[in-house]
Amino acid sequence: MQELLILRGNICYSTGKKQLESADRGYLVSRQGIVEGVYSSLPAQYEDAEITDWGNCLIIPGLTDLHVHAPQYAFRGLGMDLELLDWLNTHTFPEEAKYRDLEYAGKAYEMFVRDLKNGATTRAVVFGTIHEEATELLMDLLEESGLITMVGKVNMDRNSPDELREKSAGESLQSTRRWLGKIRDKYERTRPILTPRFIPSCTDELMSGLKEIQREYSLPVQSHLSENQGEVEWVRELCPWSDFYGDAYDHFGLFGGEYPAVMAHCVHSKEEEIRRMKQRGVYIAHCPQSNTNLSSGVAPVRTYLEQDMNIGLGSDVAGGFATSILRAMADAIQASKLRWRLSDSSLKPLSFEEAFYLGTKGGGSFFGKVGSFEPGYEMDAVVLDDSQCPYPQELTVKERVERLIYLADDSQIAGKYVAGKKIK
Amino acid sequence: MQELLILRGNICYSTGKKQLESADRGYLVSRQGIVEGVYSSLPAQYEDAEITDWGNCLIIPGLTDLHVHAPQYAFRGLGMDLELLDWLNTHTFPEEAKYRDLEYAGKAYEMFVRDLKNGATTRAVVFGTIHEEATELLMDLLEESGLITMVGKVNMDRNSPDELREKSAGESLQSTRRWLGKIRDKYERTRPILTPRFIPSCTDELMSGLKEIQREYSLPVQSHLSENQGEVEWVRELCPWSDFYGDAYDHFGLFGGEYPAVMAHCVHSKEEEIRRMKQRGVYIAHCPQSNTNLSSGVAPVRTYLEQDMNIGLGSDVAGGFATSILRAMADAIQASKLRWRLSDSSLKPLSFEEAFYLGTKGGGSFFGKVGSFEPGYEMDAVVLDDSQCPYPQELTVKERVERLIYLADDSQIAGKYVAGKKIK
Repeated sequence: MQELLILRGNICYSTGKKQLESADRGYLVSRQGIVEGVYSSLPAQYEDAEITDWGNCLIIPGLTDLHVHAPQYAFRGLGMDLELLDWLNTHTFPEEAKYRDLEYAGKAYEMFVRDLKNGATTRAVVFGTIHEEATELLMDLLEESGLITMVGKVNMDRNSPDELREKSAGESLQSTRRWLGKIRDKYERTRPILTPRFIPSCTDELMSGLKEIQREYSLPVQSHLSENQGEVEWVRELCPWSDFYGDAYDHFGLFGGEYPAVMAHCVHSKEEEIRRMKQRGVYIAHCPQSNTNLSSGVAPVRTYLEQDMNIGLGSDVAGGFATSILRAMADAIQASKLRWRLSDSSLKPLSFEEAFYLGTKGGGSFFGKVGSFEPGYEMDAVVLDDSQCPYPQELTVKERVERLIYLADDSQIAGKYVAGKKIK
Repeated sequence: MQELLILRGNICYSTGKKQLESADRGYLVSRQGIVEGVYSSLPAQYEDAEITDWGNCLIIPGLTDLHVHAPQYAFRGLGMDLELLDWLNTHTFPEEAKYRDLEYAGKAYEMFVRDLKNGATTRAVVFGTIHEEATELLMDLLEESGLITMVGKVNMDRNSPDELREKSAGESLQSTRRWLGKIRDKYERTRPILTPRFIPSCTDELMSGLKEIQREYSLPVQSHLSENQGEVEWVRELCPWSDFYGDAYDHFGLFGGEYPAVMAHCVHSKEEEIRRMKQRGVYIAHCPQSNTNLSSGVAPVRTYLEQDMNIGLGSDVAGGFATSILRAMADAIQASKLRWRLSDSSLKPLSFEEAFYLGTKGGGSFFGKVGSFEPGYEMDAVVLDDSQCPYPQELTVKERVERLIYLADDSQIAGKYVAGKKIK
């Protein structure tokens, strides 16, 4: 790794939920992968250093995808005419069952990882499948890509088809321990995360066992929460002792607190659940595209922001079809507008600044000091070349970034750095 | 033009609102720009003809954009935090006023036309500005692109800022006649269309005068209808004699019937207005992305489809940021899902087949027999290369087209034919 790294370009980053800073042809200075500062003119102490000049390009923090299913990438854009529970049984579970076959898994995961590497994402929290070997293979590929990720072998021991169900809680836990043993100390950039699929797929015994593993290995946890109304009702039937969906995770100690938790969706979370999430510091992975495609609804993101809760964006491939978190920013704004217009005028639509925060600093913080260029942040950066999206008038740096959340595709991504290392 | 043109590839096209036909490695045969048929094996009479083999690519009908503002392309993706009327005054009118300057207009319109040419659109119904010369310049560029379009010099003589308002109805009408005189017989592929901006911008005198011009020149008309609630109320105040917004157009004979009319949006149209549109054969340009971005709402598209009304898709740049009608298909499906979930469960979400129909045959019919590969249709075709969107499993031709409405960008467009002529 380079000791000192200085990039020059049009820099734009969040310092707060509504604050966006920019520097025209400024300097982004980092040392050993940690940002020292953004400067409009280069301070004297760096005068002799080498500078990578990105010309008129834009430089923004790397984006974080808080929720993505690697094995669903293969069928993104297909079969989205069903709601969650039918969609899982009809499309998702049969596809995920294929990952028992390592050859298929390798072929499909290579496509997924190539896409993620080519895009603007630098960090991701990833679901695999129940299969130990395929999940390890996915982790190998992600490690090699240079991205920094958390990856979970999925646990599911009930309410799932035979070919995608672990035969007992014991077997599921054993498999998880084997997987954790095998990958221990194997990677630099790829960490394991506990991954009970969601309450309907996991027996109480499995959840209790996962809590023991969490303590033993000090692991974070990822799962799904209050995505769809049918799902919420099902959890109420399955766990009549729970006060609300999130309480069913909390009952087993898998809802934040000592160990971080990220919960995807939170579309239908009510007051009590929101309060508990805030108490426990639970991360919300807001997945607007998926919540639209599966007709789940639109999460009350402004409520979460106003309460200073932990929240970022997720692509949720293949409920979402796009891996791009730039697109997820645009989707978050658009979904919030329809929510405001069609069902709840009490929550104003999200602004560009807020959406940008969600996709960078908001979600990035699940990985530590990630997603901004403030001093002390890990140096994840994406270089965007908008010369193929021409405009005839003068635009500010912020305006150029704003339009790219709507217009950019991967061909505009000219460079990418993860923790100071150039990977594209 | 080639006498006989035969393309080979994976062909997919609508034959009805819910019917999608496909042919794996089939043949699309046209003569003098008119489709003779799609065949799974080549009929004997064509045996000696030359074949353009597109290999594993997909071939679909050219797409029609029923509503796009060329002068708004420059600021697409910016300033979408306002609703319609404020957005017009704050962003749109000041930008459109710039088109008095032909140099600026040339620069901006070149960018717009290049984008449209590179995309999957083969036909478009286009708003210019009030400026005769800039509108002629736009028509020159569109003619040269090979696209087939209808273009309107905009009329507006009230409720608009000084720099973007024609000084009187007389002046507006005179200018329109000068423009029509100048471009008469000038183009092969580019036709004029009358373009009163919308009722709030046009005096009764102007509307009456435009009707005279319509009769004289046999012109279709394009305008806006029931996009935003504030706009609908304003029209009620401006035209207290009208029964509903559309009635204000109909009063002047500018609402379909003898001469075709296309009305953008129709988000808030009620029963009476819908009935009148159906009676008059008015075309609806459904613009889901714009209606989301400007928080207008979501049009009841299923109602329009069930009543067999004339309807297609519009990008409505720059209420919409994307010129892609593939994207508009995806947006139409997504918007219909949120409409169904958040506000009106009586109208089921649109299917992929329905959205594909809207973007091809539905909108194309405004140009005649356009938007399908049934015999007798004009041969507009787009060749899509999905090799950069890889998948590990087997997919049918229809599935491959379905995923592309979500995943394609212009780099997947390998070829484009308009009325039998290859333009890309």
